[in-house]
Amino acid sequence: MDIQDLLRQLHTEGTSKIVMPVADGLGGLPLEPGGKTELETASVPNLDKLAQQGVQGASIPVLPGITPGSGPGHLGLFGYDPLKYVIGRGALEATGVGIMLQPNEVAVRCNFCTLGADGKIADRRAGRIPTEESGPLAISLRDISIPGIELVVEPVKEHRFVVVVRGEGLGDNVSDTDPQATGRRPLDPVAGDEASEKTAEAAIEFLNQARRRLKDQPKANFLTMRGFAAKPDLPPYQDVYGLRAAAIASYPMYKGLARLVGMEIVGQATSLEEEIDALEQNWENYDFFFVHFKYTDSTGEDGNFDMKVKRIEELDAMIPRLTALKPDVLIVTGDHSTPAYVKSHSWHPVPVLLVSDRCRPDSCQEFSERQCVCGGLGQFEAKYLMSLALANADRLGKYGA
Amino acid sequence: MDIQDLLRQLHTEGTSKIVMPVADGLGGLPLEPGGKTELETASVPNLDKLAQQGVQGASIPVLPGITPGSGPGHLGLFGYDPLKYVIGRGALEATGVGIMLQPNEVAVRCNFCTLGADGKIADRRAGRIPTEESGPLAISLRDISIPGIELVVEPVKEHRFVVVVRGEGLGDNVSDTDPQATGRRPLDPVAGDEASEKTAEAAIEFLNQARRRLKDQPKANFLTMRGFAAKPDLPPYQDVYGLRAAAIASYPMYKGLARLVGMEIVGQATSLEEEIDALEQNWENYDFFFVHFKYTDSTGEDGNFDMKVKRIEELDAMIPRLTALKPDVLIVTGDHSTPAYVKSHSWHPVPVLLVSDRCRPDSCQEFSERQCVCGGLGQFEAKYLMSLALANADRLGKYGA
Repeated sequence: MDIQDLLRQLHTEGTSKIVMPVADGLGGLPLEPGGKTELETASVPNLDKLAQQGVQGASIPVLPGITPGSGPGHLGLFGYDPLKYVIGRGALEATGVGIMLQPNEVAVRCNFCTLGADGKIADRRAGRIPTEESGPLAISLRDISIPGIELVVEPVKEHRFVVVVRGEGLGDNVSDTDPQATGRRPLDPVAGDEASEKTAEAAIEFLNQARRRLKDQPKANFLTMRGFAAKPDLPPYQDVYGLRAAAIASYPMYKGLARLVGMEIVGQATSLEEEIDALEQNWENYDFFFVHFKYTDSTGEDGNFDMKVKRIEELDAMIPRLTALKPDVLIVTGDHSTPAYVKSHSWHPVPVLLVSDRCRPDSCQEFSERQCVCGGLGQFEAKYLMSLALANADRLGKYGA
Repeated sequence: MDIQDLLRQLHTEGTSKIVMPVADGLGGLPLEPGGKTELETASVPNLDKLAQQGVQGASIPVLPGITPGSGPGHLGLFGYDPLKYVIGRGALEATGVGIMLQPNEVAVRCNFCTLGADGKIADRRAGRIPTEESGPLAISLRDISIPGIELVVEPVKEHRFVVVVRGEGLGDNVSDTDPQATGRRPLDPVAGDEASEKTAEAAIEFLNQARRRLKDQPKANFLTMRGFAAKPDLPPYQDVYGLRAAAIASYPMYKGLARLVGMEIVGQATSLEEEIDALEQNWENYDFFFVHFKYTDSTGEDGNFDMKVKRIEELDAMIPRLTALKPDVLIVTGDHSTPAYVKSHSWHPVPVLLVSDRCRPDSCQEFSERQCVCGGLGQFEAKYLMSLALANADRLGKYGA
């Protein structure tokens, strides 16, 4: 029995509201020995005040030392064990460009590549072809026609694009065609089970037609297919937690991830301010609100420490609008760390700040990496955050008599 | 391999002694923002002194955010994974009134109910009939006779009583008869497997005879049956830990829980003072002593903050008698939190204080919720407390060469 099995049994009806603003990549590192992290450097008077009222902890996205991608990072936050629930690469890529996979579809991540005259791969990424060139090329593949199959082709970035194969009886157990090295021929897609044979056949036909269409291209004269994936089977929020959940996000990837767990997307915000507008406008209609703030992650990825500090301060400035709504439970956290120092996602635990009328206050005086590890929530796997949220919202019955 | 599998292999013989006084519902909450918990408010000079010598931690009874009943709360403390070992409702209710289930018995929790003239349930709790009326009614059902079956009927409180069905070949996979709503007929008990058919037949016969006996009662003219449960199969303390264990408790429920894991009940104490008398008198005969102190929980359930503080101070006053016995390991903790603020069990971690000659001291200066989360034991699931106890008692061999 895992935590979600337990919550499915124990959750109760209620009118309490939970708000979870997620600053993507919130956790950081000092740039220099003895220095402060981005969050510790930022002036966050509103968050510090909440830290004094509430309880802090450090969430471990997957397991100690494991750096998550955006998929596992958010699944963990949403309470789905990221080791149990895996979103296939194709499905995640489709989600990232705003495609909401349906049960009769299989998504594939495709890479343009360059074949030499011998038919062997000379460049696995087609010379990192720029998006301006690759986008129209991907779109030209929309003319490919396969009997009994509908196709969706969507450009992503540089050499990457997504193909979604739609039809009846399409399994997703199909092998990658990327041989993972230059000097080799692309592999054929091979079905790993009977249910996936039709998918493999469609992929072969797609590759054949694409080869003819692309053969005269100087860089992108072929493609490889990876990560065949159907819609992941995630039990919806309403069933597991008994919550009507709303997601407020600007980027397609996060809207998509939220939709996969059964949240409704509200608003069409393009900034944090508009996200809070959407929160206010939809306050009466939901029990749980996931509010995604992207720019703490992207500034971290850019290695821009000062700009990440500034983005954290922007988040802090919005806190009074959140507290004015008087949520029963307010949780400020991130999906993982993105220290400017490492310019990428990292495994470091993420500060969590939880405020409710029944949280047990700790000694923390500031919202920071240094303090959160001594906070009352301790260090815990992110997948337990939702049970803490529900408990603090008084939405759980007792386990056992 | 879980922790108990490991301990079963690693435990060694020894003469060291472990004492574990358990203050039921010990953990608390402040009544007001910025305030102190019950334990932090109490003057506990003896416990604070131990906190300076020993090591503290915060135990999570089941999983983060999960509030345990008394059964799972104690199983966790005793080292039994409360998600793996489940004590059925009938068995727990029987345990609570002092019935020690035997392997050939099935216990059922029964509720008196009121049927309308149409045979449908008008009140699932017989108007919350007072114990003075329901007790004699339950006892009158002892006259029911079923060939090949022995029956035990024991009043509990208000509409509740327990029936134990004794005989050969009685499985406990039988469905509840309570339809969980008024305006419906009680359901028939249905066997979920062949081994439970005899139990279901006995239950049907019991219900038929009870219906005739109760038919003229104004309130309690029938009953429902729930939580059919045989004796839970818990590996005994001696086997898992190599400990001769004694339980000292005033309330039947806790004596029963201790007996289920193979502890012997010593003494007939009705107060904490008498419990310590029993401990002193039996000191030579056991390796492990569970000493249960009920009143920190009941005052919490009553929402009586000041009285809970007082009860904690009573516990503190007894500490010198415990330390005078020079136990090798002394562990002061609770089975869960019962903050007066929420007037019920809660999920909040429970302070744990462990003193031994080989514990690694931490920086804690006081026994309190705020300090324990920064203690040397960290936050841990209660099921790991017994391995820490055995290790500190020098009763565990090395794992692997």
